[in-house]
Amino acid sequence: MNKQEISINPSIMCADLCNLEKSIRQIEKEGISTLHIDVIDGSFSPSMPLGIGTIKQLREITDMDFDVHIMSNNNEFFIKEMLDIGVQQITFHYESTTHIDRLLNLIKKNGVEAGLALNPATSLNDLDYVLPLCDTVMLMLMNPGFAADKSETQVDYAEKKVTDLYKLIKDRGLDTSIEVDGRVSLEAIPKLVKSGADQLVAGSTSLFRPERSMSENKVIMEESIEQGLKLREE
Amino acid sequence: MNKQEISINPSIMCADLCNLEKSIRQIEKEGISTLHIDVIDGSFSPSMPLGIGTIKQLREITDMDFDVHIMSNNNEFFIKEMLDIGVQQITFHYESTTHIDRLLNLIKKNGVEAGLALNPATSLNDLDYVLPLCDTVMLMLMNPGFAADKSETQVDYAEKKVTDLYKLIKDRGLDTSIEVDGRVSLEAIPKLVKSGADQLVAGSTSLFRPERSMSENKVIMEESIEQGLKLREE
Amino acid sequence: MNKQEISINPSIMCADLCNLEKSIRQIEKEGISTLHIDVIDGSFSPSMPLGIGTIKQLREITDMDFDVHIMSNNNEFFIKEMLDIGVQQITFHYESTTHIDRLLNLIKKNGVEAGLALNPATSLNDLDYVLPLCDTVMLMLMNPGFAADKSETQVDYAEKKVTDLYKLIKDRGLDTSIEVDGRVSLEAIPKLVKSGADQLVAGSTSLFRPERSMSENKVIMEESIEQGLKLREE
Amino acid sequence: MNKQEISINPSIMCADLCNLEKSIRQIEKEGISTLHIDVIDGSFSPSMPLGIGTIKQLREITDMDFDVHIMSNNNEFFIKEMLDIGVQQITFHYESTTHIDRLLNLIKKNGVEAGLALNPATSLNDLDYVLPLCDTVMLMLMNPGFAADKSETQVDYAEKKVTDLYKLIKDRGLDTSIEVDGRVSLEAIPKLVKSGADQLVAGSTSLFRPERSMSENKVIMEESIEQGLKLREE
Amino acid sequence: MNKQEISINPSIMCADLCNLEKSIRQIEKEGISTLHIDVIDGSFSPSMPLGIGTIKQLREITDMDFDVHIMSNNNEFFIKEMLDIGVQQITFHYESTTHIDRLLNLIKKNGVEAGLALNPATSLNDLDYVLPLCDTVMLMLMNPGFAADKSETQVDYAEKKVTDLYKLIKDRGLDTSIEVDGRVSLEAIPKLVKSGADQLVAGSTSLFRPERSMSENKVIMEESIEQGLKLREE
Amino acid sequence: MNKQEISINPSIMCADLCNLEKSIRQIEKEGISTLHIDVIDGSFSPSMPLGIGTIKQLREITDMDFDVHIMSNNNEFFIKEMLDIGVQQITFHYESTTHIDRLLNLIKKNGVEAGLALNPATSLNDLDYVLPLCDTVMLMLMNPGFAADKSETQVDYAEKKVTDLYKLIKDRGLDTSIEVDGRVSLEAIPKLVKSGADQLVAGSTSLFRPERSMSENKVIMEESIEQGLKLREE
Repeated sequence: MNKQEISINPSIMCADLCNLEKSIRQIEKEGISTLHIDVIDGSFSPSMPLGIGTIKQLREITDMDFDVHIMSNNNEFFIKEMLDIGVQQITFHYESTTHIDRLLNLIKKNGVEAGLALNPATSLNDLDYVLPLCDTVMLMLMNPGFAADKSETQVDYAEKKVTDLYKLIKDRGLDTSIEVDGRVSLEAIPKLVKSGADQLVAGSTSLFRPERSMSENKVIMEESIEQGLKLREE
Repeated sequence: MNKQEISINPSIMCADLCNLEKSIRQIEKEGISTLHIDVIDGSFSPSMPLGIGTIKQLREITDMDFDVHIMSNNNEFFIKEMLDIGVQQITFHYESTTHIDRLLNLIKKNGVEAGLALNPATSLNDLDYVLPLCDTVMLMLMNPGFAADKSETQVDYAEKKVTDLYKLIKDRGLDTSIEVDGRVSLEAIPKLVKSGADQLVAGSTSLFRPERSMSENKVIMEESIEQGLKLREE
Repeated sequence: MNKQEISINPSIMCADLCNLEKSIRQIEKEGISTLHIDVIDGSFSPSMPLGIGTIKQLREITDMDFDVHIMSNNNEFFIKEMLDIGVQQITFHYESTTHIDRLLNLIKKNGVEAGLALNPATSLNDLDYVLPLCDTVMLMLMNPGFAADKSETQVDYAEKKVTDLYKLIKDRGLDTSIEVDGRVSLEAIPKLVKSGADQLVAGSTSLFRPERSMSENKVIMEESIEQGLKLREE
Repeated sequence: MNKQEISINPSIMCADLCNLEKSIRQIEKEGISTLHIDVIDGSFSPSMPLGIGTIKQLREITDMDFDVHIMSNNNEFFIKEMLDIGVQQITFHYESTTHIDRLLNLIKKNGVEAGLALNPATSLNDLDYVLPLCDTVMLMLMNPGFAADKSETQVDYAEKKVTDLYKLIKDRGLDTSIEVDGRVSLEAIPKLVKSGADQLVAGSTSLFRPERSMSENKVIMEESIEQGLKLREE
Repeated sequence: MNKQEISINPSIMCADLCNLEKSIRQIEKEGISTLHIDVIDGSFSPSMPLGIGTIKQLREITDMDFDVHIMSNNNEFFIKEMLDIGVQQITFHYESTTHIDRLLNLIKKNGVEAGLALNPATSLNDLDYVLPLCDTVMLMLMNPGFAADKSETQVDYAEKKVTDLYKLIKDRGLDTSIEVDGRVSLEAIPKLVKSGADQLVAGSTSLFRPERSMSENKVIMEESIEQGLKLREE
Repeated sequence: MNKQEISINPSIMCADLCNLEKSIRQIEKEGISTLHIDVIDGSFSPSMPLGIGTIKQLREITDMDFDVHIMSNNNEFFIKEMLDIGVQQITFHYESTTHIDRLLNLIKKNGVEAGLALNPATSLNDLDYVLPLCDTVMLMLMNPGFAADKSETQVDYAEKKVTDLYKLIKDRGLDTSIEVDGRVSLEAIPKLVKSGADQLVAGSTSLFRPERSMSENKVIMEESIEQGLKLREE
C-alpha cells in the first residue's frame, strides 16, 4: 500500500463560495481529484452550508469526483437529487435512516459508491449485516454539522474507532474504505492513517490551513500520510 | 408614485452560482440595490437551492440589500441565522408558523423589514390582525419551491389576489409593501404593478431572460413597470 | 336540474369486504356508477379502513367511477398512488396540505376531477382563491375518520355550511360540485339537496340501511333527493 | 350586567409553587372561585411551566374551578388527562388541532366547559362554524408560552380583537364567554372589559402585582372591571 | 423436530382481495392454520396494502390464526387495534419503537404471541435484553414494505442472519421462534429452515407461485422444508 | 467501598406537590443530599409529571443536588433549561438523541455531571464509544414515564443488566456511576447494589413506603444497601 491509495477530499465548505470556479481550478491544479460536499438540511443538524442548486452548477464546470456526505432526516430525497446530478460517492447517516439496506442498494444500482456515515457515539455493531454492502464507512470524528463551532474538537476516541473499524473490515476479509471527517488536522493524520483511514476530508486544519498556501499544505499533508502509512506497516 | 418606488429584486438563483461575485458585480453595475435570496429547507418544499454558508460569504462582498424569503418548517432557526448574517428584509410563510406575531416582532426588533409570505391558495383573511405588523406581504404567484419545474406557471388568480391585497391595505390606511414572486415576466409586470405590486422578484422570465443582456432586460422591465404605474393611476 | 344530476356515491366501507366483487356487482346492478373510497393513513385520523392493494385489485374488476377521499398527512404520496391506479375523482384535506394549488393541479393535469375536503370546523374563507380550481368541494358533516364511532353524529351546522357554500359558488358564477359525507341519512337528504349538495356519500344511514334491501333503500333515497330538489327550486 | 359576571382567573404560575396549598388558600380567602392553569408541552411553545402530577394533587386539596389552557401539539392527550383529573373549563389551540369539532364535543360530553384558544395572529373567521359549540373563546393577547420573557408585551390589536369577537357573538345571538390572557394589567382591564371580555386571566400585572397585597390588588382590579362595564354600557 | 413444527404463513397480500372469503376457504382447505397479515401505514414504508376494516371483517369469517406484522411509526395504535380484533401473533419493528419492552408486554398480557421485527440492516445486539420476552423474532429478508417492487430481492446475508439468531437463541437456552419474510422462495426454504427458521411467510415465490396450483405448491414447499430440516439435523 | 458511596436519590414525584418546601425540608432533615427530578414532555412518554417553573422555584429554596432525568424528544431544549436553573446531574435518553456526544459534552462543559439513560430494551453496545464521557449511566428498570401505572413492574433482567454494565465499566478501567430507576424496592436493593448500582432512585417502594415514616424507611434502605455491598465484596 502506498500514499496514492489515500485520498485527500477537500471540503467545499472551505472554498471561496463567491468564486467557486476559481477555487475548484486551484484544487484541480494541485492534482486532487475528489471534492467533498456536505449536504445538511437544517433539521438533522442546525446548519445548511450549501444548496443543491450550487452543486448542480458545480457539476457542469468540473470533472472532479463528488463525494457527498448527506446529513438529513430525509435521506431518500437528497440521495435521489445527488444521483440526478451525477456524483461519485454518497454517504448518509445510520442514525436517521429506517431502510438502510435499501438506500445503499439504491445508490449502488446507479453505479455510485455508497457508504454509511456514523456519528461519533454510534457503535460499529450497527454495521453487522450491511458492512459488505458499504463501499465506504464514514466515521464522523466530531459531531456532524457543528464544524463552524470553533469550540468543537475531534473526539478523544477517534483513533480507537478507526482502529476498531479497520480490524473489523480486515477480519471479515473486506476492503471497505474508511473515510474520516472532523478536524482531520495535519497533526492527526499520521495516527488516523496508521489506524486505517484512507479517505481524509480536508478542511481548515489541513489543506486550507491559512498560514500556508494550498500547495505547501498539500506537501505537508502527503508527508503526514506517508508517515501514517509507515506506522501502519510496522 | 413613480417607477423609482417599484423595486426590482433579482433572484440569486438565476445568477452564476460558481461565479457569484462576478454575477453580483454585474447586478450592482445595473444600479440594482436589492438581491432576492430563497432559503428552502427541503422539507417545506422539495428543494434546497442555496446554503447559509453561501449567504454568509456573499454578505462580505457586497452592500446590496438582502431580501430573504424563507420557505421552511423551522422558521425561527432560519430567521435567527439571517439576522446574524445581517440582511435587510425577511419574509417567512404563514402556512408553517405557529407564533406569527412573535416572529414578525423578532425580525422588526432587529431593525429588519419583516413580512409574511402567503402560498397561492392562502386567504387574505389570515392577515386580519397582523397586517399592520408587516412591512411587506409576499404573495407567491406560483407554488413556492417548485420554480425549477418548467411546467409550473403563474396562477390564474395572480392579478386578482394582488388587487385584493392592495385594496385591503388602502382600506386600512396602511402602506405595506406588496412583493410578488413566481414567473413575474415582462408580460405580467404591467398588470401586477397596476394591481399594486411594488417589489418584483426578477428571474428567468424578466431580468435574466436569456435572449437579451441584463441591461436590455432591465430597460424593458422598467418600461413595463412604467406602463403598470400609468394604468394604476387611471 | 333534476335528480339524475345528483350523484349517489355508496361508501365501500359499508360493503362486504370479504366479498367485494359480489358487493360491487350488486351496486352496479342498482345502476349506480360511482364508488366512494376512503383512504385514511392512521395519522390524520385514528383509522385505516382500506388498503391501496385492495383498491388496485378493485380497479381491475369494475368500470365504476372511483371517488377517492384521502385523509392523510402525506397527501402527495396517496394522490400519486391513486393516479397510478386510475381513479376518477380525488379529494384531499385542506387541513393537512401545504401546497394546495399544486396538488389540485397535479390531479387535474392527469384528467381526474379534483377537490378539496374540509373538516366540519374549517371556514369557507379558505377557498377564496382555489375554489375555481376545484371540480368538487367535499364538506365533511362529521369528523373525518370517526364514522365507526356510533356516538358521532352529523354536525348541527351541516345545512348551514352547504347553503353557504352553494351561495358562494353561485355568486362567483361557478358550477363546482358539492359533495357531502357523514351520516347523510334518508332523513337528512332532502335538506342537504335543497341546500345545494349534489354528490351524496351513501352509507349505513341511507343505501346500506340494514332493515331494507339496497334496491328499496335506493328508491327511498331517490325520493328524498327528488324532494330536496323540489325544495331547492322553490 | 354587573361585575359579578366578570370572572377573575388568577394564574397558578404566579403562585408560590413550593407552597401551593398556602397560595391556594390565600386565593380562596379572597373569594376567588376559578384558578387558571397553563399546560404547555415544550413543543407548541418552548416552555413547560407545570406538570400534570401537580394538577392532580391540587385537585385533591381545593374545590376551586380549574380553567385549563392547553398549549400543545397533542391536544387529545392533554384533554383526556384533564378530564380524568376533573377540571371545569378546557381551552385548546386552533393552530395545533386537526379535529376541532370533535375535541370540543369530547370536552362538552364530559360536562366541562369547552373553548378554543386563538393565537394573536389568528383570524376570527376560523370560528365561522364552531363558535356556537364554544362555551368560551380564549383570545391570547400575547404570544402563548412566552410570558416569562419580560420584553413581550400585549399586542397592539388586543382591544380591536376583543371588540370584533364581541360583535360577532352578539350578531349571532350567542352568549359565548370571551377570556383574555396576556399582560391583562390593571391599566388594560377597563378597555378589555368595555370591549367585551368577561374572563380575565390575572397575573403579575394585576392580582399578583408585587408592590401591593393580593387583597389590595383585587380591590383595584374590581374597580377597573366596574369602570370597564360602565364604559361598555354607554 | 419434524416438519409439523415449521409453520407456513401465507400472506394475505397474495390472495384475491376482491374475493377474500373464497381465498381464505382455499387456504383453509389446504390445512393451513395461520394467515400472515401485513399492516403498513404509508409512513414507515411507502405502502398501505390492507386496511383495518378488512381485517375486522376477516376475523368474523375464519378461525385461522392471524399473524400480524405491523410496519408503522405509531405501533401502539395499531397493536391496540389488532388486540381488539383478536389476533394470535403480533410483530412490530424495533426501528420505530421507543418503549419496546412495554409493547411486548402489552401484547403478551393479552394472551397474544409477541415478537420484534428487524429490518435487514438491524443488528441482533439490539435483542440483548428483550429476546427472552419475544415469542418470535421476525427477520425481514428484504426491505419491509417494498415487496411490490419486483427488482427487490432477498438480501445476501439472509442465511447468515438466521444462523446467527438461531445460535443466539440456543446459546441462551430459549425456544424463541424465528419467522422469515421476504422472497422466501421454494429455492430458499431449505437453507432458511436449515439455518433455524420455523415460521415461513409464504408469498408469490412459494405457495402462490402462479404456474402451479396452491396444492401443488404446498407439496413442494413441504418437501423443501423437509429437506431443510434434514440439513439442520446433520 | 461502604454505604456512604451509595447515593439515595428520592424522587420528587413522591413528595407532596402542594407543599413542596415542607417535603424538601423533611428530606433534608434525613441527611439526604440529592433530589431526583423527572422531566417528561408528554411526547417521549405519555406523562408530564412536573414543570420547569416548579423546578426553578425549588432551586431557590434548597441547596440539595438536583439529579434530573430528562425523558423528551427535544433533549437540547430541556438540557439548556436545566443548565440555566443550575442542577448537578443530567441524564437524557439514548433513544431520542441524534448528537449524543455533543449533548454529553454540552453538559460537562457547564460543570454538571452528565449521563445517558437507557430504556430497558436498549443494548449496552450503544455505549461502546461514549461510556468514558458518561459520569453516570442511568439504567431504566421499568419503562420510563409509566411509573404511575401500578401494573408496571421492574423488568426481569434488571439484575443482569446492572451486572453487565458493572463488568463493562470495570473491564475498561472506568469509574462511571450506575444509577437505577424503576421500582427500586427495599427487596430489590440488595441485589441491585450487589450487581453494581450506586445511585438508587427512591420512590414509593422504598423511601416513600406509606406504612412507615421516611426515617424508618431510610434505616431499612441503608440496611439493604449494606447487605448489597457485602454481597458485592464476596
